[in-house]
Amino acid sequence: MKMYEILNKKRYGEALTPGDIDYVVKRFTDGEIPDYQMAALLMAIAINGMDDTETFALTKSMVETGETADLSAIRGIKVDKHSSGGVGDKTSPIVGAIVAACGVPVAKMSGRSLGFSGGTVDKLEAIPGYSIAIEKERFFEIVNTVGVSIIGQTGNLAPADKKIYQLRDVTATVESIPLIASSIMSKKIAGSADAILLDVKTGNGAFMKDIASATALAEKMVAIGKRFGKHTVALVTQMNCPLGNNIGTSLEVIEMIQVLHGNKAGRLKELCCVLAANMLYLAQKGSLEACEEMAAQALESGRAFRKFREMVAAHGGDVTLVDHPERFPEASCIKEVRAWQDGFVQGFQTEKCGMASMALGAGRENKDAQLDYTAGVCLAKGYGDPVRRGDILASLHTSRPETLDRAEQLLREGIVISGEGPKNLPLVYARIDSETV
Amino acid sequence: MKMYEILNKKRYGEALTPGDIDYVVKRFTDGEIPDYQMAALLMAIAINGMDDTETFALTKSMVETGETADLSAIRGIKVDKHSSGGVGDKTSPIVGAIVAACGVPVAKMSGRSLGFSGGTVDKLEAIPGYSIAIEKERFFEIVNTVGVSIIGQTGNLAPADKKIYQLRDVTATVESIPLIASSIMSKKIAGSADAILLDVKTGNGAFMKDIASATALAEKMVAIGKRFGKHTVALVTQMNCPLGNNIGTSLEVIEMIQVLHGNKAGRLKELCCVLAANMLYLAQKGSLEACEEMAAQALESGRAFRKFREMVAAHGGDVTLVDHPERFPEASCIKEVRAWQDGFVQGFQTEKCGMASMALGAGRENKDAQLDYTAGVCLAKGYGDPVRRGDILASLHTSRPETLDRAEQLLREGIVISGEGPKNLPLVYARIDSETV
Repeated sequence: MKMYEILNKKRYGEALTPGDIDYVVKRFTDGEIPDYQMAALLMAIAINGMDDTETFALTKSMVETGETADLSAIRGIKVDKHSSGGVGDKTSPIVGAIVAACGVPVAKMSGRSLGFSGGTVDKLEAIPGYSIAIEKERFFEIVNTVGVSIIGQTGNLAPADKKIYQLRDVTATVESIPLIASSIMSKKIAGSADAILLDVKTGNGAFMKDIASATALAEKMVAIGKRFGKHTVALVTQMNCPLGNNIGTSLEVIEMIQVLHGNKAGRLKELCCVLAANMLYLAQKGSLEACEEMAAQALESGRAFRKFREMVAAHGGDVTLVDHPERFPEASCIKEVRAWQDGFVQGFQTEKCGMASMALGAGRENKDAQLDYTAGVCLAKGYGDPVRRGDILASLHTSRPETLDRAEQLLREGIVISGEGPKNLPLVYARIDSETV
Repeated sequence: MKMYEILNKKRYGEALTPGDIDYVVKRFTDGEIPDYQMAALLMAIAINGMDDTETFALTKSMVETGETADLSAIRGIKVDKHSSGGVGDKTSPIVGAIVAACGVPVAKMSGRSLGFSGGTVDKLEAIPGYSIAIEKERFFEIVNTVGVSIIGQTGNLAPADKKIYQLRDVTATVESIPLIASSIMSKKIAGSADAILLDVKTGNGAFMKDIASATALAEKMVAIGKRFGKHTVALVTQMNCPLGNNIGTSLEVIEMIQVLHGNKAGRLKELCCVLAANMLYLAQKGSLEACEEMAAQALESGRAFRKFREMVAAHGGDVTLVDHPERFPEASCIKEVRAWQDGFVQGFQTEKCGMASMALGAGRENKDAQLDYTAGVCLAKGYGDPVRRGDILASLHTSRPETLDRAEQLLREGIVISGEGPKNLPLVYARIDSETV
């Protein structure tokens, strides 16, 4: 009867009480509330929304269904970072290395992922020997000695979120700001960091297509973090073109190393510095301006690269590849895609570029699919670059030649060439800080 | 994937195509679409609505999941009647008898019901011997010879509706005009009558509490009937007080007989005449005015009573009770409820009166509960009657004395006595005719 009343309230757009929400989350996780009632409630929430008090209560109840990480063995202020993900996003290891090089510990648990490309841990596994599944004690030891460790997700954090997400995925209720915000934040809160940095992507390569929605999501998450007493900063960043030139697995590791080596400028490097600066700021290393300077120096000086190398070594990875990224195994088939007209790279259909990479074998179509580490796309031309007909736009890498035609078609749909040069695209649209909202 | 797209459309308030709706209805009925997806869709429909084209498509697809009644063995124009139900609603057998007395065949299948009181067939079964489960051939024979037969629901009409309704019942999606309209109309259309009369109740004793919603529902159902090519009339009628004086099972049969005997005036009789006149009009017996006159004469002349008596006899019921309704078995406990102040019966909390009757044993709390035929409430004072402190307001009838206190409390909450006399209540708020809309 109580569930019926809760459904009826939300159906008519009323706010649920924290007690209502706790009742739903705990009993759904226990299996007492059936999927069909939860599905109806999720649809009512997706349509009628949730206010900040409800979203906080939902996050809190989801956190309480699972474990909470104990990071007390790590010295210093722990700052966690979350990215909503996008095509070519390889910032985490670079940012982690920069931040660690500035003396702030980075204990990061990352996921694999479905979709266009592997997650951060998939990319690190492309370095032969790198183990993402190490004992908790060793993880803490690496963080305390090297300064940075990135491992796979462990522990039973917010199991309610997982169960709810599975249902959202099949009921067209994924796109809901309060549900997305509480899902992300439940895992961040259970992760027990002292402060949280959120990178919310927006654009045609991101889940949130428009700036307004991305900003609303960012604000909602910052509001949740604030209520939990965590200093939380969200950046709304641009994802209207792939981040960097490479999309894939080892192709992305190679690009990470290029950035860390300091011999690669551009948007990827800029974004890594902004994210690292904000993490340092959250770790109370100084003003944001001072932290930006600190991050830039860590990168330019090679200290960030050395931290990354130490982390790879500590995880058992082959550092000769870090020193010589040109030695990463190459795909057996490489095909060039050439410009079909003169003009400028006027823009990207970023999702299509991701789909091209996935078609070549760099993404998982289902959770058991094996990744082809060598597969992916290398863009030779970036946003705004002038091109002449016949210029190489990109190369397609795969061990499965039968995928090349489809991937080329997708990539051609993904790159827009036009007579006019494009407008300048900002890197960061908005920054929301829980201490100033 | 198709179900996901359908969910997404309705989530964002888009109209579904007839193809979408047919896909959902057929596959949900087959068990291919799981409850949780259907529950999410029902919630999206409950919140975002459905236009007339969608509602028609939903009705049509639900009809196609089951059998369609074959009434070809019955001579003449067959008119079906549906009432959305209310406390003390005992019109069907009276109206059926009047209409049959005017030469129009009435082949009515009625339901049992959950809730405040039994359905029409429960009431008829309170006449010892009356069988509601007869062979189809005998049913047609009674209709062709006597002119009227009322039996229990048979056949597998619109099974999708039943399965969908069960899910709506536990997901707070019952209150939805397109879902209610298509549910009712799917069974009426599958019932194959030539024309349809709908009695949509509104007020504090009805499912639709306000006139606007009841009118919207009536209009929606008439629109569906019209699209199926059926002449359909809906009356929006008042249910702010119990219909008649008696609420219960045999208590209601006694009142039916009183009306048919012609020795009971009032709103119940008036409504029966209006409904009968509209059925005669739908059966093309003349103008509405002429049909009103015809219905009144059938009742006043005793011809309607004789038809009812013949129907009871044909179904094996004990006609001595029809002739002498005072011989119906009485409840073992009868308690009078007296007025607590001077004034007027200013109004009713009609639902509370129904709950009092149910508490005494006249309704089912679950589908296996046994009805106490003798249980119920007899109101001694009606809407607007002057009362003096200590006057008998009503009597409570039950075979379970332990229920009396609770029932008395409910009934006291159900009768509003005040110094001021009430406003006049109309009997019919609106009449919607598919041939004039």
